Amino acid sequence: MSRVGIVGIGHTIFGRRSDATVQELAFEAYRAALEDGDVDPAVIEATVIGSVPEYHKQRSLAGVIQEYLNLNPKPTWLTEVACASGSAAIRTAWMSIKAGVHDVVAVIGCQKMTELETAEILALMGRVGDVQWESGFGTTFPGYYAMFARRHMHEFGTTAEHLAQVAVKNHHYGARNSKALFQKEITTAKALASDPVATPLTVYDCCANADGAACVILANERAARKMGGDRAVWLDGNGCATSSMSVLRRTDLTGIPSAQEAARQAYEMAGITAADVKVAEVHDCFTIAEIMAYEDLGFCAKGEGGAFIAEKQSYIGGSTPVNVDGGLKAKGHPVGATGVSMACEMVRQLRNEAGERQVPGADVGLTHNVGGIGQYCFVNVFKKD
Amino acid sequence: MSRVGIVGIGHTIFGRRSDATVQELAFEAYRAALEDGDVDPAVIEATVIGSVPEYHKQRSLAGVIQEYLNLNPKPTWLTEVACASGSAAIRTAWMSIKAGVHDVVAVIGCQKMTELETAEILALMGRVGDVQWESGFGTTFPGYYAMFARRHMHEFGTTAEHLAQVAVKNHHYGARNSKALFQKEITTAKALASDPVATPLTVYDCCANADGAACVILANERAARKMGGDRAVWLDGNGCATSSMSVLRRTDLTGIPSAQEAARQAYEMAGITAADVKVAEVHDCFTIAEIMAYEDLGFCAKGEGGAFIAEKQSYIGGSTPVNVDGGLKAKGHPVGATGVSMACEMVRQLRNEAGERQVPGADVGLTHNVGGIGQYCFVNVFKKD
Repeated sequence: MSRVGIVGIGHTIFGRRSDATVQELAFEAYRAALEDGDVDPAVIEATVIGSVPEYHKQRSLAGVIQEYLNLNPKPTWLTEVACASGSAAIRTAWMSIKAGVHDVVAVIGCQKMTELETAEILALMGRVGDVQWESGFGTTFPGYYAMFARRHMHEFGTTAEHLAQVAVKNHHYGARNSKALFQKEITTAKALASDPVATPLTVYDCCANADGAACVILANERAARKMGGDRAVWLDGNGCATSSMSVLRRTDLTGIPSAQEAARQAYEMAGITAADVKVAEVHDCFTIAEIMAYEDLGFCAKGEGGAFIAEKQSYIGGSTPVNVDGGLKAKGHPVGATGVSMACEMVRQLRNEAGERQVPGADVGLTHNVGGIGQYCFVNVFKKD
Repeated sequence: MSRVGIVGIGHTIFGRRSDATVQELAFEAYRAALEDGDVDPAVIEATVIGSVPEYHKQRSLAGVIQEYLNLNPKPTWLTEVACASGSAAIRTAWMSIKAGVHDVVAVIGCQKMTELETAEILALMGRVGDVQWESGFGTTFPGYYAMFARRHMHEFGTTAEHLAQVAVKNHHYGARNSKALFQKEITTAKALASDPVATPLTVYDCCANADGAACVILANERAARKMGGDRAVWLDGNGCATSSMSVLRRTDLTGIPSAQEAARQAYEMAGITAADVKVAEVHDCFTIAEIMAYEDLGFCAKGEGGAFIAEKQSYIGGSTPVNVDGGLKAKGHPVGATGVSMACEMVRQLRNEAGERQVPGADVGLTHNVGGIGQYCFVNVFKKD
């Protein structure tokens, strides 16, 4: 089976982008990816769009984007799995190339989260939870992750300081990422003193909505070697798994079962273990989510996620640097774009082009993109020859 | 490259289904498909859901469906391309099998169109058109297709009687389909006398919203031969193309460019021509759409679609029987389910199990599923050994 390589990456600034429609954001990322890889648009055979449609005034985004990119009559379609929609688009494109259906495919994750009023957005987000059994009782994302945090604290002695330390790290790196929403450092004291959202989570434990887009251009092995030369980065492991949507059916609230299973698949496919990962992007929608990810991905043992951040093991120089682009926390979270943004950062790291955020010797990278509260998780492993 | 076979089909009744949630509808179709193919659910490796999410109170449907089907932790994700969402799900699953990523995948198209108020649905539908340039001027689906009809009449002499004859045919077959929304015959006179919707289209020129779900289980060649035996039907051609979303950029309003291109791809992949097609399901969201499809697919020459129905060439016994299950017109159009419903009918026909609607000697079948006003089109070719 042929390998699939990434030959171009593009990324808009994440933030409030009232200057651009969603198709304009998509184009901005797509054009940057063409330029990055010196890719002729004539070789793009299809696009796959990762987005959550209902946050936009425009419906059925894929069509309007394909037209704006001047790619008619080539195929396009949209994938949706909440906050992991971008990774589902990558998986779809990866499969299309492995199947021999397409040689080169552009994946675009894009999202405008600020077109609707805040109250509308909150109402929509609540309905990502289980509408039949749970969301009627007022469950929201901060509430779910607060439950996870409480339980993690109870079972393993994780503290509010540990949570704050994740935020401090991610702001530290976000301050060094010109595409990030929050490009400023914070202190543990500031994070701990910020307003409660869903106790024990405070404002600084939560990522922020943002508008933005990211693009990766995938190609089969032959095309990737021809187009990308030494710069090609290989998507060698692709795991995808699901957990029950209703938390009522979970037997453990201190981890995400789909993340553990997706990681197992991706490690096996790529022929690596957690110890081989030199740099990772994980889904830190809330700080507790990053701590659970350390454990779910095997970067540390179960229950030791708090110590892992306290010892700075997830900083550059630690055992597994995590979210050195700022993560969702500091970069912002345009939901459909996030999984593709993670892939962009991995490519940048593996090409040794990440500047002051570069992890030395990064030749194996991992992305971990969770949808909802873990009803979906996609884990990808990237390698550089 | 291995062939992909269909080994099980399931289909709910289409209509107002206030008795069931969307996940219950999905389960109803899925269970029927397992029973139809005598498939052990343990062999299902993944699901792909075709749906337009925003018509449901529940968001991120794929997760809640996967849980309800008891398929966690297996992968799932949703595909969206307006009314062609079900066909995008089929294409995704087909690619995953050709890629060797999965051996057996269940595709479920599902939609509840009646959960929201009619005014909300109409507002959402309007926004499937180009929001930036067109829908602000009041464009709607009936309006777009009325323009197509006007132009077809002007250029080729197509008449209101031709349109009505399509409706009469599809109601004729819908009356013989126990899953159809409208199981009653109509007359040309009744159709012509019905209320105008967007002149020249009347009520009987328009398909109706409905709730419903359909499921097809796809398998790689080895598994399909083992599981399906002689009953397996092969998905040998899969075409997908796009046209501009804004009708402003179309140079011809008498056909759907994406349909012509998708058909070309599918015929080439399957090694057939239009003349080989023994039975077809086409996207008759409006009667004019079926007439354009005859031409776009090559069942007759350009401009002769009106004569094609007048001569009953699309009836059983004619040169290419079309929509002999009632089509969207009589069966109803639960948008995400429609493409999968079409595939179910093709399998039924090619297995020679369609009862009084059976097309004699049907060994090559075609489905044509349009999204929006043709910003997407998927054409599939099915064969029976």
